[in-house]
Amino acid sequence: MPKLQTIAEHIGARVEGDASSSVDGLATLLDAGPTELSFLANMAYRDQLQITQAGAVIVHPKQAHEVKGTALVMDNPYLGYAKASQLFNTLPDAQKGIHSSAVIHESAQVDTTASIGANAVVEANAVIAKNAVIGSGSFIGNNSRIGEGTRLHSNVSVYHDVIIGTDCIIHSGAVIGSDGFGFAPDRGAWVKIAQIGGVVIGDHVEIGANSTIDRGAMSDTQIHDGVKLDNQIQIAHNVVVGEATAMAGGCLIAGSTQIGKGCTIAGGVGIAGHLKIADGVHVTAMTLVTNHISEAGSYSSGTAMSNTSEWRKSAARFRQLDSIAKRLKQCERVLSEKE
Amino acid sequence: MPKLQTIAEHIGARVEGDASSSVDGLATLLDAGPTELSFLANMAYRDQLQITQAGAVIVHPKQAHEVKGTALVMDNPYLGYAKASQLFNTLPDAQKGIHSSAVIHESAQVDTTASIGANAVVEANAVIAKNAVIGSGSFIGNNSRIGEGTRLHSNVSVYHDVIIGTDCIIHSGAVIGSDGFGFAPDRGAWVKIAQIGGVVIGDHVEIGANSTIDRGAMSDTQIHDGVKLDNQIQIAHNVVVGEATAMAGGCLIAGSTQIGKGCTIAGGVGIAGHLKIADGVHVTAMTLVTNHISEAGSYSSGTAMSNTSEWRKSAARFRQLDSIAKRLKQCERVLSEKE
Amino acid sequence: MPKLQTIAEHIGARVEGDASSSVDGLATLLDAGPTELSFLANMAYRDQLQITQAGAVIVHPKQAHEVKGTALVMDNPYLGYAKASQLFNTLPDAQKGIHSSAVIHESAQVDTTASIGANAVVEANAVIAKNAVIGSGSFIGNNSRIGEGTRLHSNVSVYHDVIIGTDCIIHSGAVIGSDGFGFAPDRGAWVKIAQIGGVVIGDHVEIGANSTIDRGAMSDTQIHDGVKLDNQIQIAHNVVVGEATAMAGGCLIAGSTQIGKGCTIAGGVGIAGHLKIADGVHVTAMTLVTNHISEAGSYSSGTAMSNTSEWRKSAARFRQLDSIAKRLKQCERVLSEKE
Repeated sequence: MPKLQTIAEHIGARVEGDASSSVDGLATLLDAGPTELSFLANMAYRDQLQITQAGAVIVHPKQAHEVKGTALVMDNPYLGYAKASQLFNTLPDAQKGIHSSAVIHESAQVDTTASIGANAVVEANAVIAKNAVIGSGSFIGNNSRIGEGTRLHSNVSVYHDVIIGTDCIIHSGAVIGSDGFGFAPDRGAWVKIAQIGGVVIGDHVEIGANSTIDRGAMSDTQIHDGVKLDNQIQIAHNVVVGEATAMAGGCLIAGSTQIGKGCTIAGGVGIAGHLKIADGVHVTAMTLVTNHISEAGSYSSGTAMSNTSEWRKSAARFRQLDSIAKRLKQCERVLSEKE
Repeated sequence: MPKLQTIAEHIGARVEGDASSSVDGLATLLDAGPTELSFLANMAYRDQLQITQAGAVIVHPKQAHEVKGTALVMDNPYLGYAKASQLFNTLPDAQKGIHSSAVIHESAQVDTTASIGANAVVEANAVIAKNAVIGSGSFIGNNSRIGEGTRLHSNVSVYHDVIIGTDCIIHSGAVIGSDGFGFAPDRGAWVKIAQIGGVVIGDHVEIGANSTIDRGAMSDTQIHDGVKLDNQIQIAHNVVVGEATAMAGGCLIAGSTQIGKGCTIAGGVGIAGHLKIADGVHVTAMTLVTNHISEAGSYSSGTAMSNTSEWRKSAARFRQLDSIAKRLKQCERVLSEKE
Repeated sequence: MPKLQTIAEHIGARVEGDASSSVDGLATLLDAGPTELSFLANMAYRDQLQITQAGAVIVHPKQAHEVKGTALVMDNPYLGYAKASQLFNTLPDAQKGIHSSAVIHESAQVDTTASIGANAVVEANAVIAKNAVIGSGSFIGNNSRIGEGTRLHSNVSVYHDVIIGTDCIIHSGAVIGSDGFGFAPDRGAWVKIAQIGGVVIGDHVEIGANSTIDRGAMSDTQIHDGVKLDNQIQIAHNVVVGEATAMAGGCLIAGSTQIGKGCTIAGGVGIAGHLKIADGVHVTAMTLVTNHISEAGSYSSGTAMSNTSEWRKSAARFRQLDSIAKRLKQCERVLSEKE
């Protein structure tokens, strides 16, 4: 049960009210009880300050006087919430040391402060740095390196020659370093192109559950510092994802595409191969990107949703669009001749 | 080799013909041989009753007289097929007890009738109920509970504080309780929001291979009784999926969206975050839902498929649609002035 | 360090220059150094022959005279690159034999030349053929057969009654033989249809990381010889994928669809159920296929990407398309009456 004073110091807020009282959880304004902390980050919920039962609320200075309990006051309450949440994290600490059921190659280097979970496997010449955590059933291939403080959850697969930086989080079922999809056609069959590049992942990267990041064909696939990838994302060989870019679930990024820094890619987006996407680009959900994007901004494709019966009519007419455009032009021509 | 009488009792049909004969398998009308059972549920295949070699056929009373072998007669032959299929299931029974290679924390409670597969891991305070099956290589995190009769196949990952009800089926590679995708922006970087909620899954739920269900940010992600999720589905934090809703492969459901009861969501559908979808909604394949849906019915987005060369013309004209609409309005105006 | 002469023989090229020198790696024309091999397969990069530092280059006879170092000359340089890449493969050889931590059922047959990785599990009556490799943490269910020379990477799940041919590659996290998605509706609930078919996978098939292939409802799901599937692909029950068809990441193929030979399906494509797709079909990225395709050719759906603000206008007008088409027809009628 942290005291509000402690929380305020951790998140960089000042306390208005009883700094010595404690809270035992974090909840929304509507859900929070008297022993819980809440926050107001979206003005749409401002009225809830009047009815919340929360013992304390993180707010912007402008709303501080509206808080009935204790206010934790700071300019960016959403950031305050993020930092406070870490104090209430329920994720169990991993036990230091190598579990007796783990299989570690004699040439692997595992720091004494690292944690290797039950039935995990660490192959030859792999390096597991200080305070790194390898979850149960995870696999670390030859020569791969897991950086300081990085945590792999259970059943993660890391192939050989993969470098993962410090303070990363890799969720269960993620696969890093699988072969890129490369084949040369030869008289109706496909000849495999060995994928001899690796994967290099920077620091503070998070990779979601069941996401896949392929190794490079010749040089490395690269995920730069601070990138956040949600679940079920596919990153093909030789993709470069720039610093602090975030992608929501189910995105598919084809080979050799370079995505800039600070991009936000919504769920289900596909980006074709060999493209360059500028810094600061936003792509809306389920858009297909088939061209370079050279300027920051928001990009979209697709159509709006309708009732299926209405949609069928539009979809049928979509096929006639070229004819419609030409016929319209003809109408305009006739009309202008009549003038 | 069950006797037809036994099958009829199991599925709730009456036998017309030789109830004492047996069948050793289940097949379509076209594939079935004389020792196999088949069914007619779709009238498009009615003519196949004339040519089928099946030893017995599950049919509606109206078609009973058309069956040449033995008829198993009931009002819902497709339901009869479903129930009969369970008698021919090839899935091996799991062996009761804890495999010697499994790693079980001393504080975990594993019922003596449960089965824990080879190299599975069960963490502290987890509870594995009667007749539950934990597949080989699966991981059950701290405090998680697996209900009576629930079966996890191999290599499933269940994080901490996840509750799974009774008689569920979780397929290989599924991940339940991974972190929701939540970050607060802070001067160009992302600060992680600890995901301190859990996941609560009801009874009779099936979750497909490599599907992912994130834990809640503060409160729980919820999958209600009787929900059926196909493979490779992504359910984000704090989503609620209502009773008996079914989703086909590859759906992406963004955070905090609430889906009603009895919905059928086709493959590859995306549903944006913070939406409410009514009961009884059907969404067609690969539709993007970006608004609340307040009425039952069928909904769609996207365009119909064409030859790529035709499609290119339509796609180019799509970008001109606003101009086309305005120019059409102008034509109409000129024409009405001429009247 | 293979000699150029050796490489030339391996890939079927003739050497122009110093056949006795060696190379220690493979790189693009721009990246290659004096001890590396490169290739020119795409004429867009032809100018790079002038500036490359590569010690040797695989080229078409027409460009042989432009190579400054040693030329490896052949008609299909891209095929040469593919074959050469295999000489530089970094994938570690698997150790023959059964790892002491693997769990093998006494009735399973494991060839003495096969490799069973740490913590892998092989169930009753499974057969692992000569030189097959079962990666760490992988699971092979009852009666399943893994063909000669086939390699499963770590954490692959193969259910019971799955047959995989020779010289296949199955990447980490792939799931083969999970239940097809079949239920009969019964008064608001879903009754499971036991999936009693298996999966049959031919020879020289590659299946990407976290891809899923469901078992058949009654008969088998089939993946024919030479098929190449990228990551995160979902193949539903009773699908048939024809010889040498290739699919990029994230494709979703619904139940009972039959895809022909030699098709190329781009990323994120959805194909509805019970369809027949001819041989030699190409489908562009993120297309939804809802009808049979009876002729070879290229097919597409969707719209082109725009700025979101422009796109919003088009998307709104899309809903008016039927009205636009009717109003245009009315304009044409009025105009023709005026003639």
